[in-house]
Amino acid sequence: MRQLPREKIMYFGDTARAPYGPRPAEEVTRFTRQIVEYLIQFRPKMIVIACNTATAVALEDIRSRVAIPVVGVIHPGARAANGRTQSGIVGVIGTEGTIRSGAYEQALKQLSPSIDVISLACPKFVPLVEQGNFRSRETQEVVETSLQPLKARNIDTLILGCTHYPYLSDTIASVMGRDVMLISSADETAREISTILHDRNRLTRDGELPIHQFFCSGDPRMFRMIAQQWLGEQIELTPVVWQVPKIG
Amino acid sequence: MRQLPREKIMYFGDTARAPYGPRPAEEVTRFTRQIVEYLIQFRPKMIVIACNTATAVALEDIRSRVAIPVVGVIHPGARAANGRTQSGIVGVIGTEGTIRSGAYEQALKQLSPSIDVISLACPKFVPLVEQGNFRSRETQEVVETSLQPLKARNIDTLILGCTHYPYLSDTIASVMGRDVMLISSADETAREISTILHDRNRLTRDGELPIHQFFCSGDPRMFRMIAQQWLGEQIELTPVVWQVPKIG
Repeated sequence: MRQLPREKIMYFGDTARAPYGPRPAEEVTRFTRQIVEYLIQFRPKMIVIACNTATAVALEDIRSRVAIPVVGVIHPGARAANGRTQSGIVGVIGTEGTIRSGAYEQALKQLSPSIDVISLACPKFVPLVEQGNFRSRETQEVVETSLQPLKARNIDTLILGCTHYPYLSDTIASVMGRDVMLISSADETAREISTILHDRNRLTRDGELPIHQFFCSGDPRMFRMIAQQWLGEQIELTPVVWQVPKIG
Repeated sequence: MRQLPREKIMYFGDTARAPYGPRPAEEVTRFTRQIVEYLIQFRPKMIVIACNTATAVALEDIRSRVAIPVVGVIHPGARAANGRTQSGIVGVIGTEGTIRSGAYEQALKQLSPSIDVISLACPKFVPLVEQGNFRSRETQEVVETSLQPLKARNIDTLILGCTHYPYLSDTIASVMGRDVMLISSADETAREISTILHDRNRLTRDGELPIHQFFCSGDPRMFRMIAQQWLGEQIELTPVVWQVPKIG
């Protein structure tokens, strides 16, 4: 919304079945296909898989099924890290599903064969964020303990390979130290969406600013409350937050 | 070469007719067309106009003439600035041709109608860089005096809108202060090239690392000497540095 204020966003949050992190790959792929099928009826010009776990296991599958561009959150983060690392040693943290898939390592090696990738699953981070527990003493301790294996390595760039992790970025930054640059896949993905739409001459050039639409599979009241907390006024403009029937 | 080590680069430096900055738009467009015509015979998968002045005046012209993607250096820098600014006030410095064209302002406003753009031509910077005069007392004074009009404004992001300026970035950074983030269009363009090739399934995935080719319109000995200074060993691998006949 900030980087592409002219583009209409139709957001689907699979709140009833989140988190995806610990689920088997086959299940995540099935869920992702269902959501893409749901969204495609609105004839979007692009699909963004805004979840690292779903990107890791389902991006290529979805890309092969739809005719419009499909962007995940892994390649943008990998590309940003590849562009910024000086030491050539990049850390990646993510859910178990993301790390197990090896998707970041593959994306980084595809860009630069000489890059070193140190991957680490941090399964305790998502529950902390889901509880809104961003800066407590407990969070500090969990982050510190979890990241120990990375501290010993000479990484200069750390990819926050899960859309929840930027909420912990202050704590992660203080643990890793100021010489380690943190990459948020969300920011980088918004940037790449803009690049791709520009390349394809599909950027919206003018007209009224859009009214976004939000969908979720779980309780819409809870979803709207959290969305208002994060997005402020802007969510007031989005009249449609509803429960999606018959998905999954 | 650093961000896309698998991709073969055919580089054309119009050394005989540089700098483009003070030339009229019609002349820059004509030169750019000639070079694209020359390069297109090698059947590249993409053309990069790696010069801000040529991008400002000729990008749309070239995009309409060739069937492959054509990327300039202005939109990548604008997109990076749009993604990173917090205050929404972005500075742009460039040659007279680039600033006169209004191309950055247009690119930024197209992305975000609410963004404020403060543009400033710095015609004294290119000669300093061409002389290799990166860190002298004279350079410090010229940069300080030239950037005064920007210091008074509340910019938090400054686009180095000329491929020469990153060589002065230490001095520019010290004049602007640490709260102003500098954007190098070169880094950002390499990043977007990668994004676009990935979206189009045209990234080179494996095979031997490429041997790049360099062409220039002026004295190839001087060109090779400077290229070796900047690129080190890597230029040794590029056997072809020759004078292009009958261009222009």
